[in-house]
Amino acid sequence: MNVFVIGIGLIGGSFVKDVKTNMPETIVYGIDVNASHLEEALALGLIDKKSNYEELHLADFVMVSIPVDVMVRELPKILNAISDECVVCDAGSTKELICAELDDHPKRRNFLACHPIAGTEFSGPSAAIDGLYDGKTNIICEVEKTAFKLQEKALSIFQLLGMRIRYMNPKAHDKHIAYVSHLSHISSFMLGKTVIEKEKNERDIFDMAGSGFESTVRLAKSSPSMWTPIFEQNKENVIETLEEYIQNLSEFKALLLKDDFEGIYNEMNNTNKIKSILKGIPLNKNNR
Amino acid sequence: MNVFVIGIGLIGGSFVKDVKTNMPETIVYGIDVNASHLEEALALGLIDKKSNYEELHLADFVMVSIPVDVMVRELPKILNAISDECVVCDAGSTKELICAELDDHPKRRNFLACHPIAGTEFSGPSAAIDGLYDGKTNIICEVEKTAFKLQEKALSIFQLLGMRIRYMNPKAHDKHIAYVSHLSHISSFMLGKTVIEKEKNERDIFDMAGSGFESTVRLAKSSPSMWTPIFEQNKENVIETLEEYIQNLSEFKALLLKDDFEGIYNEMNNTNKIKSILKGIPLNKNNR
Repeated sequence: MNVFVIGIGLIGGSFVKDVKTNMPETIVYGIDVNASHLEEALALGLIDKKSNYEELHLADFVMVSIPVDVMVRELPKILNAISDECVVCDAGSTKELICAELDDHPKRRNFLACHPIAGTEFSGPSAAIDGLYDGKTNIICEVEKTAFKLQEKALSIFQLLGMRIRYMNPKAHDKHIAYVSHLSHISSFMLGKTVIEKEKNERDIFDMAGSGFESTVRLAKSSPSMWTPIFEQNKENVIETLEEYIQNLSEFKALLLKDDFEGIYNEMNNTNKIKSILKGIPLNKNNR
Repeated sequence: MNVFVIGIGLIGGSFVKDVKTNMPETIVYGIDVNASHLEEALALGLIDKKSNYEELHLADFVMVSIPVDVMVRELPKILNAISDECVVCDAGSTKELICAELDDHPKRRNFLACHPIAGTEFSGPSAAIDGLYDGKTNIICEVEKTAFKLQEKALSIFQLLGMRIRYMNPKAHDKHIAYVSHLSHISSFMLGKTVIEKEKNERDIFDMAGSGFESTVRLAKSSPSMWTPIFEQNKENVIETLEEYIQNLSEFKALLLKDDFEGIYNEMNNTNKIKSILKGIPLNKNNR
């Protein structure tokens, strides 16, 4: 089987790493606008060959893991270049615009809109890790628009990698993901900003910050090039979540201002039920 | 050596666990208002004996790890009950009120105001872990008010446990810690609240949330009984950090509203330097 990966960073790199482990006979072709990333991916053994769109007709399966703004522009070209038996999956964190843009494409049946909920705060080929997708959820949108045999081909690979599949429409995906992923990134970036602004002397942060702070600002290490277009494409939903978040923070502040510490206790106590919710979230096995 | 631990949860329990590992001849006495926690600590081998204030005169070293409101009330009584050769350390996340309240105490020289920057989101004796303090920072306030020999006694134990010592005045401690610890907890609790409110059907959160969300809301599992009095004692500083955080979130929202995605990119890019800062934070070795 010929697997092409377009965009070889954390997401694409980890994907083909697992593909090669589970299907050793696979030949992995890599495409990336960043020539040094491509070299690095080859040196790391993530890909077998450097490739380009002219060779895409050789592909049985294509994973596209590039920023979502580039995705919207490139997916039509990628679909134009593949054979009828090839299935193209994306790994974008937004689904509505991507699905809308491809809706009329003559090869729409060759596309499977995916969002594997997996990642770390790192990026680039060297960030690729084994088993990133094991036990993780892959959200598939508009599955009915993909040819049945091509759905099957993609699902068999996802299954080999240990992924759980959930089906959802693109609108619902973008709305929900704004809460459980996009908002977390903003809260983390702005927390980082607030502390950096205050603590001009970095040594002070370093000495006083513990693992709790590290955990809440971890996502502030994420790639701005990847996240800016996500926020752009999911702007309406993200603004809604941000408004609710700011509102909740302001209410918490108001409780402090009026010395309502019973109210403060209740706010936290009610949110403690996140404990039982979080128990169900599959984590990276080599989390650190 | 007789070590007393008052309040046997995550902090006190982990402390005596390491004390027993490093100084096996130590006898550990436990005091806790929660009888079942005391039984549990005994069963887990965290303490050798259940004890009470009447036996405190036997103590060479006392670690007080109780909520900071109870701390302010209990520390004077504890100091009254100990011998002249005993040193009492606290592990409170606030220092200003505690130091102020003890300033005139006849046994002030027997007290060492400490804040070991260590913990997890869990609580109770069963949350105690080995090596929690190894490589962590212990912030000591008003060290000059503690008798020199008693400073030495406490420091030798902290050193055995692998802690780094930093000296700071209580006011600076409370101000800085609001940024790198207290604010993180509020951002996490309110993030949890925002998502729970929206996603009434918990199954949806469970299916779509990944390790990034888990990381940013981890602190929302923390104990409200422990955190409410911390926010109360550090109210002024916490409100200031909250205002700055809300301001930064509002500015981010404003950039989204006016489609200034270059601005959004820059916000994230500037905050990315948290990467190099975070490299210096010592994490729990068995983080999960």
